[in-house]
Amino acid sequence: MLHIAERKFASRLLTGTGKFSRAETMLYALDASGTQLVTLALKRLDLQQGRDEILRPLRSLGVDLLPNTSGARTAEEAIFAARLAREALGTNWLKLEIHPDQRYLLPDPLETLKAAQQLVKEGFVVLPYCGADPVLCLQLQEAGCAAVMPLGAPIGSNQGLQSKAFLQIIVEQSQVPVIVDAGIGAPSQAAEALEMGVDGVLINTAIACATDPVSMARAFKLAVEAGRMAFEAGTAEPGQAQASSPLTTFTEAL
Amino acid sequence: MLHIAERKFASRLLTGTGKFSRAETMLYALDASGTQLVTLALKRLDLQQGRDEILRPLRSLGVDLLPNTSGARTAEEAIFAARLAREALGTNWLKLEIHPDQRYLLPDPLETLKAAQQLVKEGFVVLPYCGADPVLCLQLQEAGCAAVMPLGAPIGSNQGLQSKAFLQIIVEQSQVPVIVDAGIGAPSQAAEALEMGVDGVLINTAIACATDPVSMARAFKLAVEAGRMAFEAGTAEPGQAQASSPLTTFTEAL
Amino acid sequence: MLHIAERKFASRLLTGTGKFSRAETMLYALDASGTQLVTLALKRLDLQQGRDEILRPLRSLGVDLLPNTSGARTAEEAIFAARLAREALGTNWLKLEIHPDQRYLLPDPLETLKAAQQLVKEGFVVLPYCGADPVLCLQLQEAGCAAVMPLGAPIGSNQGLQSKAFLQIIVEQSQVPVIVDAGIGAPSQAAEALEMGVDGVLINTAIACATDPVSMARAFKLAVEAGRMAFEAGTAEPGQAQASSPLTTFTEAL
Amino acid sequence: MLHIAERKFASRLLTGTGKFSRAETMLYALDASGTQLVTLALKRLDLQQGRDEILRPLRSLGVDLLPNTSGARTAEEAIFAARLAREALGTNWLKLEIHPDQRYLLPDPLETLKAAQQLVKEGFVVLPYCGADPVLCLQLQEAGCAAVMPLGAPIGSNQGLQSKAFLQIIVEQSQVPVIVDAGIGAPSQAAEALEMGVDGVLINTAIACATDPVSMARAFKLAVEAGRMAFEAGTAEPGQAQASSPLTTFTEAL
Repeated sequence: MLHIAERKFASRLLTGTGKFSRAETMLYALDASGTQLVTLALKRLDLQQGRDEILRPLRSLGVDLLPNTSGARTAEEAIFAARLAREALGTNWLKLEIHPDQRYLLPDPLETLKAAQQLVKEGFVVLPYCGADPVLCLQLQEAGCAAVMPLGAPIGSNQGLQSKAFLQIIVEQSQVPVIVDAGIGAPSQAAEALEMGVDGVLINTAIACATDPVSMARAFKLAVEAGRMAFEAGTAEPGQAQASSPLTTFTEAL
Repeated sequence: MLHIAERKFASRLLTGTGKFSRAETMLYALDASGTQLVTLALKRLDLQQGRDEILRPLRSLGVDLLPNTSGARTAEEAIFAARLAREALGTNWLKLEIHPDQRYLLPDPLETLKAAQQLVKEGFVVLPYCGADPVLCLQLQEAGCAAVMPLGAPIGSNQGLQSKAFLQIIVEQSQVPVIVDAGIGAPSQAAEALEMGVDGVLINTAIACATDPVSMARAFKLAVEAGRMAFEAGTAEPGQAQASSPLTTFTEAL
Repeated sequence: MLHIAERKFASRLLTGTGKFSRAETMLYALDASGTQLVTLALKRLDLQQGRDEILRPLRSLGVDLLPNTSGARTAEEAIFAARLAREALGTNWLKLEIHPDQRYLLPDPLETLKAAQQLVKEGFVVLPYCGADPVLCLQLQEAGCAAVMPLGAPIGSNQGLQSKAFLQIIVEQSQVPVIVDAGIGAPSQAAEALEMGVDGVLINTAIACATDPVSMARAFKLAVEAGRMAFEAGTAEPGQAQASSPLTTFTEAL
Repeated sequence: MLHIAERKFASRLLTGTGKFSRAETMLYALDASGTQLVTLALKRLDLQQGRDEILRPLRSLGVDLLPNTSGARTAEEAIFAARLAREALGTNWLKLEIHPDQRYLLPDPLETLKAAQQLVKEGFVVLPYCGADPVLCLQLQEAGCAAVMPLGAPIGSNQGLQSKAFLQIIVEQSQVPVIVDAGIGAPSQAAEALEMGVDGVLINTAIACATDPVSMARAFKLAVEAGRMAFEAGTAEPGQAQASSPLTTFTEAL
């Protein structure tokens, strides 16, 4: 079970709602993924009414909502968005995203820490999207964040665990869950993250942009389960060749 | 479904019987893996009686047996072993392994092709273990082999798809199933193989030497299913960063 | 030529002074490396006298000194150290290093930016060691840093360009020189950095801990020149196989 | 010095003559590369006269010629081509290339070994292009080949040492020089090959197709020297982070 704040999740696969061609496809895909925590951008909500074509069916899936501040360029913008989201959605959970850079959407370490400190004070359960920076991740943990969400590779790049050397240190040091956010493009990469001790992954583009998003969602579900299971079962280290077959005495056997 | 010769297998995970600490652990692990095709070395059989502590329970699992010629250093030795195995086990299926080198157990391309040609003539269903050599794989196919089993990395090394650049060509060219044999050390690597279009994988060391072989076997089962599912669902290509969140008009949304 | 602030350097290989077994070996190695900019920790200096067994011969080599603040855990400590170094060594150039973490020596993004802003105001030429974080690198540039020094891999790990996916974005965006600091363990890795457009590399451990540091220093010199030369000559992209030999009409030729 | 048969070469960079846009560019590039052994396809020669616009200037460079059998699809074709080349060029050195596959130009292991055995008997100094197959490389050595030339990646792909896990075994086992042929696309990759103990590399496409082939040739010259120098100087292994700076007692220093 993945514990974040006081909640427990059987699924270690977090998902997003962007880039799907149709809302119906998104819902079938999220359902197939087994996800229990779904992030969505403020923009996708009808803030006046608190319900729209995306929000209502999401609720019907029984998943927890994790509003995000995607689009915020500063701590100030993110904090403002967070408050709106809390009011509109009735949840104090928040995926904190601050990216001044509109080309690569990479997170701003300073503004993210500053906003996290403020939002924790305001009672939010904060899950910050951040670089795979071990020092920053510890500072976010100290600020009271409920988890850290370091990136695996530039968002939407499908390049997998490009930051692996740093993720390993983060996993080793972190006392809050580590959830790899961004960059994972294939189920094998999600499994690899879990195998190395990462607590969860957030997948959006790789599911939404697959030819068949529903099947891909299910593939990620299985891969995340496989990766966690392998982590717990003790994956062998890469190393020298060793025979699995008994070859010492073949000719004797004859 | 994986088709080899005239048989169909729901599972794309082939397994081996070596290196398990106990026969009982092996059986639980193989059962958890969902495997339907299990290779075993001739030496493990009681050739006089055709039944022993390994063979009987293997049959009880309902899996197909794939005797191998592990330990054979020449075509001649392999052919001799193959005939014995057919008689002892009552199957003409054969995993052909010829490795003159006792340190790394790497396959001999020439002796393997020579033995394959002869064994096909004798009515065997031949699945040869071979280097990730696209030219050789085509020749093995032309010789009538029912599948090719190129290696991913040196056997027992757990290094994963070290031969990926060549496996891609083999997958592209082959008209018989391609099963990656040797080197896969983690479920993520098995998933990666399936995602790139490989038809199956054979796992032994990574399961047998895990701290918990039964859980690891189940992890591989899920990972292989995930990888195949992703292949069919159309994995997106790694590439440039693309946002999955709608950030163009965040401030407008406010 | 590598331009940093108003100075020009023919060599793109920066070096350090740590970990050498003997001062004499260090001097021969630095000489062989062709380096023109050498970083040294404050601790290595006899601050009372401004000269010691390391400082005097370094000056005799004719290299520029780049004092660093290694060991500083906060901006305050780093600023204090920087002022001492300026006074002791008579240079306002500074490699800013702040790492609260004594296990992996990873840089603190916030304290580094804060110190950089202050030190630039005080007239220092600041070259900050930092994570391979594109947003932070732009902020350091905006703060007036003369270059940025993102890490390639955890310091002393010899793992090479583990942060490559992010270094590429930094190189693309930066208007000040990008110098990869930390993690480069072999000349091939230094060449790879230069080939991708990085402006320089700083090497210490890989030279100091080689069996033959002087030869290794010369190897890095050549590799850095090779990498830069290749960058300017236009390295071809990896891609599909293309023949370099004329094979269309072999038989015609006969 | 690189020893092949009875000859010694100061340069470990072998080159080819294909794909250059102009003969003049090729000559300047080969000169800049410092190469002493240049392969050329039979087709490029005017067999009637033994001299043409490529051959004459190549001789003027003072390099040794290494005719190759590119385009040969069988041992028989290669042997025929080899005899013609010996007569036309007055050298018994031969780069043996047999590739039935016209798409990827991958070598045929069986035909290559068969042709090598015959050509050695006929007095040729045979350097066979082959897959990175440790067993085959030993067989080619036993057949009397003067060196082995395993491929790093599919020819012309510029992907570098995709076969590294296998090259390491070949280097460890081989008693004749190991020269990586095909796939190297950048000087850093050539340096990497030399660092791991490979004896030489053959570069063609990466030089000929560079924007500036002459500068690229010189970059490869330096990189090969750097890689060999690092190999002899004892490159440190990748591993755990270790500080190169003295940080234990920074505050004491103050």
